[in-house]
Amino acid sequence: MLKKVSQTIEQLTSPPLGDGGMTKLTVIKIGGNIIDDEQKLASFLKDFAAIEGKKILVHGGGKLATRLAETMGVQQQMVDGRRITDAETLKIVTMVYAGYINKNVVAALQANGCNAIGLSGADGDAITAHKRNHASIDYGFVGDVDAVNAPLISVLLEQNLAVVFAPITHDKNGLLLNTNADTIAQEIAKGLSEAYDVSLIYSFEKAGVLLDVNDDNSVIPVINPAEYEKLKSPQSGGGGAKIFAGMLPKLDNAFAAINSGVTKVIIGKAEQLPLLLEAKAGTTIIA
Amino acid sequence: MLKKVSQTIEQLTSPPLGDGGMTKLTVIKIGGNIIDDEQKLASFLKDFAAIEGKKILVHGGGKLATRLAETMGVQQQMVDGRRITDAETLKIVTMVYAGYINKNVVAALQANGCNAIGLSGADGDAITAHKRNHASIDYGFVGDVDAVNAPLISVLLEQNLAVVFAPITHDKNGLLLNTNADTIAQEIAKGLSEAYDVSLIYSFEKAGVLLDVNDDNSVIPVINPAEYEKLKSPQSGGGGAKIFAGMLPKLDNAFAAINSGVTKVIIGKAEQLPLLLEAKAGTTIIA
Repeated sequence: MLKKVSQTIEQLTSPPLGDGGMTKLTVIKIGGNIIDDEQKLASFLKDFAAIEGKKILVHGGGKLATRLAETMGVQQQMVDGRRITDAETLKIVTMVYAGYINKNVVAALQANGCNAIGLSGADGDAITAHKRNHASIDYGFVGDVDAVNAPLISVLLEQNLAVVFAPITHDKNGLLLNTNADTIAQEIAKGLSEAYDVSLIYSFEKAGVLLDVNDDNSVIPVINPAEYEKLKSPQSGGGGAKIFAGMLPKLDNAFAAINSGVTKVIIGKAEQLPLLLEAKAGTTIIA
Repeated sequence: MLKKVSQTIEQLTSPPLGDGGMTKLTVIKIGGNIIDDEQKLASFLKDFAAIEGKKILVHGGGKLATRLAETMGVQQQMVDGRRITDAETLKIVTMVYAGYINKNVVAALQANGCNAIGLSGADGDAITAHKRNHASIDYGFVGDVDAVNAPLISVLLEQNLAVVFAPITHDKNGLLLNTNADTIAQEIAKGLSEAYDVSLIYSFEKAGVLLDVNDDNSVIPVINPAEYEKLKSPQSGGGGAKIFAGMLPKLDNAFAAINSGVTKVIIGKAEQLPLLLEAKAGTTIIA
């Protein structure tokens, strides 16, 4: 009886612990389509603010950067769904991602009673990267992640700050680099998995990984590596891959995270965040 | 002899202490004209990176925001040297100050071996403000500072991070506010003066407070309150105030800081930062 009471008190006063006895950390990537929708974003941030325990939000850019580039007369180039980042575009994404979006997200979280701190990868040397070296395509000022400064991020989390990352990194030589937000979320989740029991959530406009990209009711609830190989094979489903191309890098990121110490990865709809947190919606990726 | 040796070891291993035994903290405001000059800014940031001990940089905005507003076709209004901040202008200054300038300054400091973290007032609830309430002028989204979160800033300084502030605050209700950078520097210096021995440096394009605004050799080395009253009186110098109008808010800020626990305030040329730090150049404000 006495033991039960002391356990209860411990539960009330300590942060939630994962299975391995480590403190739980929730890392959430929020996609561009939600960022672009003022009401959906406000609702998502309210849900995010309500999450108990340590948490990190990584946001993408949405269409704001593209619209600003149009207003400024800067031509945008895309290759394989990735923006070619010339000097003017780097300036624009730094302004929009690390400035406008990041600071408005932080201010909205503060209004919801969640003390948040917004960072780029340059801040506190949080995420270092190198300019992408590609055999045939010059991506411009696009960065591939080298390292995540887990001790710095831990210090901020231990101050009960929610950390909000813009998808901008730096090369330690003064260069800012435009970096894929999914990759940043994965690298942060991996980097902090030694110190925390990390759940990584990719939240976007779809209900999860879908068997039919146009049917939100076709969510695949659980995917393991063998299942993934079957789903992405051109032979599956009679002639075409069952998972649409845009989902492949997300799933590759998810498995890379799972294989590097992240406890679980969940992919699903931003509006269902509370359900995703309990794995009661979306697609759960397991090892 | 033994005491002398141990003191020397202490000096080598401890942060520099001020007269009152408190750790020294240097708060530096860098003006817009330096921000606009790529080479001067690079040289200034190299000097800033080399400062020993705890340090905070507050940067203004420069002409970048005005240029972006022109490109975007947003009309700018100024009243008494203050920008009227409508919704579109707030968006622009958030992008330029908290995004482009702040992150490039941080990346440049990292390249100079100085681990810096760039914040707006919303980040970590660092600086709260309220929308200015003025009898006759609607300044729009301009904030007057209510509070500085000294414990949060101290935690970052104790991690040996240089903190870089953009002149954007928040009202805790989700609103970002455009805020005078001189005022932010003063409020931060005041807010941290209970825990640190604070020197506040206003660095800009002039050599200090000048008797003749066009003569950099006319620096007034020291100003006390009585001297200040004389200098700003219309009767001084035979017919006109000796200090030009643009300097008055800076000096008012300086005396407000001195009267609230800041150890010293120095006003001078950004290019002379190492000399300013030793009070060997510029104008020193004393109580």
